[in-house]
Amino acid sequence: MPRYKLTIEYDGTPFMGWQIQSDRQTVQGAITDAVKAFCGDYIIPFGAGRTDSGVHARGQVAHLDLSRDWPADTVRDALNAQLRPLPIAILDCTPVDPSFDARFSALQRRYRYEIVLRRAPLTLDRKRVWLVHQALDVAAMQEAATKFVGKHDFTTFRSVACQAKSPVKTVNSFEVVENRNRVTLTTTAKSFLHSQVRSMVGSLKLVGEGKWPASKISQILQAKDRSLCAALAPAHGLYLDQVDY
Amino acid sequence: MPRYKLTIEYDGTPFMGWQIQSDRQTVQGAITDAVKAFCGDYIIPFGAGRTDSGVHARGQVAHLDLSRDWPADTVRDALNAQLRPLPIAILDCTPVDPSFDARFSALQRRYRYEIVLRRAPLTLDRKRVWLVHQALDVAAMQEAATKFVGKHDFTTFRSVACQAKSPVKTVNSFEVVENRNRVTLTTTAKSFLHSQVRSMVGSLKLVGEGKWPASKISQILQAKDRSLCAALAPAHGLYLDQVDY
Repeated sequence: MPRYKLTIEYDGTPFMGWQIQSDRQTVQGAITDAVKAFCGDYIIPFGAGRTDSGVHARGQVAHLDLSRDWPADTVRDALNAQLRPLPIAILDCTPVDPSFDARFSALQRRYRYEIVLRRAPLTLDRKRVWLVHQALDVAAMQEAATKFVGKHDFTTFRSVACQAKSPVKTVNSFEVVENRNRVTLTTTAKSFLHSQVRSMVGSLKLVGEGKWPASKISQILQAKDRSLCAALAPAHGLYLDQVDY
Repeated sequence: MPRYKLTIEYDGTPFMGWQIQSDRQTVQGAITDAVKAFCGDYIIPFGAGRTDSGVHARGQVAHLDLSRDWPADTVRDALNAQLRPLPIAILDCTPVDPSFDARFSALQRRYRYEIVLRRAPLTLDRKRVWLVHQALDVAAMQEAATKFVGKHDFTTFRSVACQAKSPVKTVNSFEVVENRNRVTLTTTAKSFLHSQVRSMVGSLKLVGEGKWPASKISQILQAKDRSLCAALAPAHGLYLDQVDY
């Protein structure tokens, strides 16, 4: 069966996350339905990351095996046609070797988190960014973010529902950039634990507010105690931007 | 009566434009209702630009006279509270001299138009940009755009419904910038005619597609003939970004 690599963008707002569920609308479920409608194959695409409900993607990647050798552009266009009007788009479809695995072949994942600082409610950016009403000390956040870089036990920063066998992950980079009233946090790793990015961002926000010193990040990381983590940053500010292979 | 300057952001999607209408939802109408609900005054805010249905604003400006001398921050927060859940936000409210007029005191208006070039449908950017499926020659568009700069009779580039007495306007600047697969067109003028920006962008798009040479812009500008204009660029790619005083 020929295998295809799909690069996928979606607005996470109307979905109960990536992973297929029997009774709820999910991105994986919607693509599975689109494949069935296009060519009759009942094939579940395997994704690089299981984004949570409300989380967006600019560059989710999935692999898909089809029973026939379709031209890749035909697959892309047919799936896009079948996916309408849902806010899911197949940006690219490429034939790949059957050994390619969207999840296990990934060398690095990049997530981006967007915060907008202002008093007024959101309009054009609703469900696209985290609205924070007070100023944040971005230099302190950047300093604190460096504590996440490297190989650590991220027990404090993973969901209690996380199914990974080991809480040890290596964060390759974590940047915090301010542009006018927008703060963009970007982090890369080979892989992340469940809710790890939102846990890290939620904690950095407390540093930015001055409620926590930057040093507290190292302290709670070393404690390996989930109860010490700040509240999760909301899902709608998070984007799975890119997966490298 | 104390006068206030409001800086307003809105998602134009659900509105029949800025200007108040008796039977349809408009931005001006919604703010009028919010003022009434806040303090009982029936006062229509006067805007710097009458954006069309679907056009967005990041920095519309209006002035508003209230019967009482409220703290400006109270006006801003109260209007934002009353405007919910509509996608309209008062970003700023400042007391101004009664001689200040949002429309007539404006020295310059800046509009931005966003185009995204790709084959796949839009998801996160739906109703925020003009989706164009083919590549555009941005250098040719930039060259053509310079033809709009300066004082010209813009008869070709204004709506037949335009109520301005004179079709002569002075465009101060017109920039076309490409960033990955996004083309951003930004233009400034003391004021624009009705549909002028969308008319200019629609024509530049034909230049970008190679259907028109860049020189055709000068030619149809000089012809002063509305029938020679390209189709209007869609409303949902246009933003009223800033008004300078």
